Amino acid sequence: MNLLDELEHAGLSAQGEEMHRLAAELYPLCRSITGNGLRQTLAILGKRIPLRLTEVPTGTEVFDWTVPNEWNIRDAYIRVPGGERVVDFQRRNLHVVNYSVPVRATMRLSELKPRLHTLPDRPDWIPYRTSYYKEDWGFCLEHNRLLALEDREYEVCIDSTLAPGSLTYGECVVPGRSPAEVLISCHACHPSLANDNLSGVCVAAALAQFLAGRDLRYTYRFLFIPATIGAIAWLARNQAATGNIQHGLVLAYLGDSAAFHYKKSRRGDATVDRAAAHALRHACEGSEVLEFSPYGYDERQYCSPGFDLPVGCLMRSFWDSFPEYHTSADNLDFIRPAHLAESLRVCATIVNILENDRRYRNLSPYGEPQLGKRGLYPPGGGVSIARDVHARLWMLNQSDGRNSLLDVAERSGLPFAMIMDAAEALRRGGLLSMLPDAADAELVAPGDAKRGRQQEN
Amino acid sequence: MNLLDELEHAGLSAQGEEMHRLAAELYPLCRSITGNGLRQTLAILGKRIPLRLTEVPTGTEVFDWTVPNEWNIRDAYIRVPGGERVVDFQRRNLHVVNYSVPVRATMRLSELKPRLHTLPDRPDWIPYRTSYYKEDWGFCLEHNRLLALEDREYEVCIDSTLAPGSLTYGECVVPGRSPAEVLISCHACHPSLANDNLSGVCVAAALAQFLAGRDLRYTYRFLFIPATIGAIAWLARNQAATGNIQHGLVLAYLGDSAAFHYKKSRRGDATVDRAAAHALRHACEGSEVLEFSPYGYDERQYCSPGFDLPVGCLMRSFWDSFPEYHTSADNLDFIRPAHLAESLRVCATIVNILENDRRYRNLSPYGEPQLGKRGLYPPGGGVSIARDVHARLWMLNQSDGRNSLLDVAERSGLPFAMIMDAAEALRRGGLLSMLPDAADAELVAPGDAKRGRQQEN
Amino acid sequence: MNLLDELEHAGLSAQGEEMHRLAAELYPLCRSITGNGLRQTLAILGKRIPLRLTEVPTGTEVFDWTVPNEWNIRDAYIRVPGGERVVDFQRRNLHVVNYSVPVRATMRLSELKPRLHTLPDRPDWIPYRTSYYKEDWGFCLEHNRLLALEDREYEVCIDSTLAPGSLTYGECVVPGRSPAEVLISCHACHPSLANDNLSGVCVAAALAQFLAGRDLRYTYRFLFIPATIGAIAWLARNQAATGNIQHGLVLAYLGDSAAFHYKKSRRGDATVDRAAAHALRHACEGSEVLEFSPYGYDERQYCSPGFDLPVGCLMRSFWDSFPEYHTSADNLDFIRPAHLAESLRVCATIVNILENDRRYRNLSPYGEPQLGKRGLYPPGGGVSIARDVHARLWMLNQSDGRNSLLDVAERSGLPFAMIMDAAEALRRGGLLSMLPDAADAELVAPGDAKRGRQQEN
Repeated sequence: MNLLDELEHAGLSAQGEEMHRLAAELYPLCRSITGNGLRQTLAILGKRIPLRLTEVPTGTEVFDWTVPNEWNIRDAYIRVPGGERVVDFQRRNLHVVNYSVPVRATMRLSELKPRLHTLPDRPDWIPYRTSYYKEDWGFCLEHNRLLALEDREYEVCIDSTLAPGSLTYGECVVPGRSPAEVLISCHACHPSLANDNLSGVCVAAALAQFLAGRDLRYTYRFLFIPATIGAIAWLARNQAATGNIQHGLVLAYLGDSAAFHYKKSRRGDATVDRAAAHALRHACEGSEVLEFSPYGYDERQYCSPGFDLPVGCLMRSFWDSFPEYHTSADNLDFIRPAHLAESLRVCATIVNILENDRRYRNLSPYGEPQLGKRGLYPPGGGVSIARDVHARLWMLNQSDGRNSLLDVAERSGLPFAMIMDAAEALRRGGLLSMLPDAADAELVAPGDAKRGRQQEN
Repeated sequence: MNLLDELEHAGLSAQGEEMHRLAAELYPLCRSITGNGLRQTLAILGKRIPLRLTEVPTGTEVFDWTVPNEWNIRDAYIRVPGGERVVDFQRRNLHVVNYSVPVRATMRLSELKPRLHTLPDRPDWIPYRTSYYKEDWGFCLEHNRLLALEDREYEVCIDSTLAPGSLTYGECVVPGRSPAEVLISCHACHPSLANDNLSGVCVAAALAQFLAGRDLRYTYRFLFIPATIGAIAWLARNQAATGNIQHGLVLAYLGDSAAFHYKKSRRGDATVDRAAAHALRHACEGSEVLEFSPYGYDERQYCSPGFDLPVGCLMRSFWDSFPEYHTSADNLDFIRPAHLAESLRVCATIVNILENDRRYRNLSPYGEPQLGKRGLYPPGGGVSIARDVHARLWMLNQSDGRNSLLDVAERSGLPFAMIMDAAEALRRGGLLSMLPDAADAELVAPGDAKRGRQQEN
Repeated sequence: MNLLDELEHAGLSAQGEEMHRLAAELYPLCRSITGNGLRQTLAILGKRIPLRLTEVPTGTEVFDWTVPNEWNIRDAYIRVPGGERVVDFQRRNLHVVNYSVPVRATMRLSELKPRLHTLPDRPDWIPYRTSYYKEDWGFCLEHNRLLALEDREYEVCIDSTLAPGSLTYGECVVPGRSPAEVLISCHACHPSLANDNLSGVCVAAALAQFLAGRDLRYTYRFLFIPATIGAIAWLARNQAATGNIQHGLVLAYLGDSAAFHYKKSRRGDATVDRAAAHALRHACEGSEVLEFSPYGYDERQYCSPGFDLPVGCLMRSFWDSFPEYHTSADNLDFIRPAHLAESLRVCATIVNILENDRRYRNLSPYGEPQLGKRGLYPPGGGVSIARDVHARLWMLNQSDGRNSLLDVAERSGLPFAMIMDAAEALRRGGLLSMLPDAADAELVAPGDAKRGRQQEN
C-alpha cells in the first residue's frame, strides 16, 4: 500500500487549510507545561482524534524530576494606577513570563525594570520567557513600548495560581498489525506561538487522522505533551513499554517556509534516520540532515543513554535559526497552509518507507531474467530506458536476500516509491518473492494482536 | 615480470595502427546477436588468436531466456517502384532495423512512416535500432533524407531470414600457471558501429595476442559474444566453471578520445576494482571511477546476484554519454589508433597489477635498514630524495606481512610499477622476502596444471 | 588537573623568551650525529632538566646499522695561500660539509669546485650538507661568494678527526603514577640551524621542565638524540621497554610562523593521533593533519613495522616545505619567542588530553537529569544556552560507559578542556561517576611504582 498515493488522493491542499484552521483555533490559548490552557488544547484535539488524557499529580517523582505545581492564570497587566493598561495579558498572553507567581503591587518603573524582558534588536516584537522551576515573575513587552513608558509608579498585577494540581498529556494510538510501535511526539505547551509548536501539533494530528483506520504494519503512538517534563513523565510511566518502539519522530517547526531539516537520532544509523534522509533527499530542495546533538526538543529525552531510542526530529527551521523564534512574530502569518501540507507529505513519505521497507529474493538470479517477454522492458532495442526500468534492474540485481527496498533505493539513488513499485511489478511477474524478516517476525495478523507475536507467512 | 615494460617494448604505436586496421576490416560486416555476420567476424579474429567457437542451437533454454531464431540478411531497400533506391542496406547496414523479419511490399510514405526511425536532432546521422525478441521490421535513415521523400508509393524490401539455426560465440584461453582465471569479455554483435564495440573487440584481441606465450600467473579467458543473450548463454553453459573467475573486465568503447571510465563490479571492493582505480588514477588525466549500476553491458550478467562475479567494465565514453552512441557517426573516424593503443596500455596496467600483486615481509623490521650501504639510498645527506627512494621506504614500512603491493601503492599514492620495482630492489638487497598468499596457494607450477592446486614455495 | 590552566598560569610569554634564549645559547655549537658539539648541547640542557647521558661506542651494532666513528672539528677554511680566508668555518659552521674527513691541500678553483655546494636560486644563503656514512669532504657557501672567487690556487684546510669514540644521546624521565610512558623525541644533531631543530629541542626541554614535579598519570620520557642513528641506537638498547610506550610525539620545526602540522603515526588512529588532531582543530587556525608517510624524522624509526609505536610528529612548517630548510637562513631570526610559546601550548594541549581522557557513567541516564536544581543550567527558560551547558548535555548523553572525554569532544565539536570541565562539574553534582578503564588498570598509585601495576579505585 503506497501511503503517499493515498495522501495525494485525500487532497493535500485541503489538509493544509484544515491544519491552519486548527492552529488558528488553538493559537489564543495560554498554554504552559501544566494547567487549563493545555487541557483546553487537548480537548480541541480530542474532537478530531481519539485522545487518552493522563493527569500526573503535582509532586510525582519522574526519574530525576518532580512534577511541579499546576499553573493557571486569569489576568495580568501593568497600568497607570486607576488608568489604562500599558501591558495587557488579555491582548497577548506572551506579555507575562510563563509560570509567574501571583503579584499585586505598585512600584516605580526603575524598580519594575529588572522584571521587564524586551528585544532591543527587534523593538516591535515581544519575547517569550518562562520560569517553570524557579518561583519568579515578570513581563515581556516590545522594546519600543518600554522606551515610551514614563518613569513613574505603575500598578502591577499577575492574577495567577501556582498550586498542587497535575500535569496533563494526551496520547493517541493508531493500531497496526504489530505491537511494534512508531512514536510520534510533539510538544504542546507553548502559548501563542504558531511555528513553535502549533505547527508540529497540527501536522501530528493530521497524520494521526490520515493513518487511522488503515491496515498498518506498525502501531502508531502520538504524544501531545509538555516539553521536557512531559516527555520525562511519559517515559517514567511507560519505561518497559519503550521496548516496543522501533522508530520515532519528534515533530516541530513545520509551518514556516524554510527547507526541511532532519536531526538524526543518537544512534545515527537507525532505520528512521535513513528513511528520513532518503525522504528529504528526494522530496525537498535544499533540505539538510543534521547530526544528533543533545540540544533541541524531546528527542533529547528519548535519546538519553538509558533509553537510546531510535527517535529523530523533523523540522523546517530549527531552534535559534530563525529570528522569529520565541517571539510574538512567530504568529499565524508565519505559518502557511502549503507549508503545513508539504510537511505532512514528508511525514507520510517517511511513514511509507517504514511501513513498506522489506527484503525480497530474486527468483531468477542467474543473469538478468528476460523482462521484455513479461512486458517489463520497453520494446525496441538501441534506445535509452526510463527510470522505472532502471528501478526494476536494481531490484533484481540487489535482491539477494540481504538488501531491503530502502537499501536498494539508497544504492540506486532512485526514490523509494519507485523501487517499491518495481518490486511489486516484479513480484507480480513471478520474479521476486517477498521475504519475512526480523521485523516481520514480530508482526501479528490483523485483529490478532491479543494472540501475541507470531510469524507471518 | 613487468608487463608494461614489455608492452612498451613491443611498440604501442604500431599496435594502435594494427587494431585500427582490424576494426576497419570488421566494420562493413552486418553483425547481429546471431547469424553469418557474427561468424565472419569471429573467423577474422580467429586468424589472429586461437578462437574456439560454440554454436548454441535455436530453442536452447539458457536460464530465463531461449536462444532465438537465427537472423540473416542479404539485401534491403526502399525504392521508387522500378526506380532507384532511396534507402539501401548495401550502402550502410544500419539502414535496416536489426533482426527485421522479411518484407516485400508496396506502400505509401504515410503508411511506411511509423517504421522509419530518424534522429531529428542529428538530421544527417542514421540511428541504430534492433528488435531481437519481438518480430518486427523497419528502416533507419537520416532525418534529412526522410524530409526529402515525396509522399508517394514505395517498394519496400527486406530480404532476410529468421529461422532455426544457432547463436555463435568465440572463446580464447591464454593459459597461466594457475587454473584461476581472469575473464575478459566484449560484445561483438553490433553491425557497422566502431566504438561500440569494434574498439573493445580489437583491444581484447590485441591483449590476448600480447599475453599469449608469456609466463602468466593467471589463466586468461577472452569472450567475444553477442550482448546479453551471449553472456547469459555462456554463463548457463559454464556455471560451475565460473568459480575459477577471480577477476574480470568487460571492454567497451575504447577507441574514442574521452577520458577513461571504470565502472566497479557489484562487490565494489574487488581486487579488480582497486587495480582499475589505481591504473586510472596514475595513467589517465580526467579519468573517473563509477559506482556499479545494473545498466550497461555484460557486467550486468556477470554481476547478477546468482553469480556476483568480480567483473567491472572499462570504457572511455560510456553508453548514452556521447552523441555518436548508436548512430552512424560512430564510424571508423570516431576511433583512433592512438586511443586504442592507450586503451591497451591501461588494460595491461590492470593486468600487470593482477599478475604481480603480492605480499612481502620486511626482514629488517626494527628501525629502517641502512639503505645507503646497499646503494639503495642517495649519498649526500641534507637533500630531498626521489620518488623511487620514497617507494623503497614505503615498502619497508608497510611490509609487515599484511599489505600487498597494491595496498602499499594505494597508501603511498605512488604508481604500482614503482612500488613493484622497489620491492624487487629490496628483495635483491636481502631486505624483503616474498610471501606465499591465499591466491598463490591456488596457483600451480607451470606445466603442472593437471596435478591440481598446490602451494608454491 | 587541567595542565593548560597551569601552563597559562606559569606565564607562556616568559617561557617563549626563555626558550629563545636557550636556542641562542645552543645555536653557535657545531653539532653532528656524534662528537663534542652534541655533548656540549646536552650539557647545557642538563643544567635545566635532569638528563641521563648514554655513550654508545663506535662499532656497536644497532639493528642494521653500526655506530660510526666519532667526528670532531676544530677549524676549516679556504684561503688565498698566505692570505685571508674566503670561506671560514669559524664564522659559520655550516661552511663545512658535516662529517668531512681531514684535508690539507692546495688546489685550483676548478679542481675544488666539485666539492663546493651552493644554492644558485638563493645566492646569499649557505646550504647544509652532510656525509655521515661515506668518507668525503666539502664546503658549503653562498653562490654569490663562489661567483666572486678568482680561478686560482687556494689553500684548503679541514682540521677534523674521524676516529673511534662514541655516539651520545640524552634522556630525561619525568615520572608519573604509571610505568606506562609517553615518548617525546627530538633530534639534536644539526649544527647552526634554528628551526631544525633547536626549536624542537627547546620546546621539549620546556615541556619537561613544566611537567617535572607534577602529579602525572603517565611517565614521560624525553629523548634528545641524533637523527636516525640515534633513534635506532636507542630502540636497539631499549627494545623490550618500548612495550611501555602508549603514546608518543616527535617534535620538530616548532619556532617558525607557519600553521601547525601533525603527521599521524603509522597506525593512523592511535589516541595520540586523535588527541593531536583535536588540539590542532581547536588551537590553531589553518592547521593541518597529515597522513603518515615513512619519510620525515625519527617517527619513521618508531613507526617501523617491527615496533609500530603510536608516535606522531608535531611541526609547524615541515621538511622541504619552507625555503629556509637546511640553509643558513634557518637562523635565530627565523624562530620567534611567541611561536615557540604557542608550540609549547599545543604540546600541553595534547598532553592534557592524554592525561585526562577517561570514561564516565551517567548515574541518571533515564531522560535528562534536572540540571537547574543543581545550578548547572541557566535559570530563565526560552533563551539560548552557552557552550559550557552544551558540554554538560553532551557528557550526560554520551556517558553510557563506552565513550571517553575525547570521544565526546570529537562528537560534540567542543574543546576537550570544556568537556573535561563539564565532566568535573557533573561528577561533583553527583550525576557522573568516573570509570576505571584498561589504561587506568595499568596505573599505580603515586609513590607506588615499585609495587607494580594495580587497579586504581
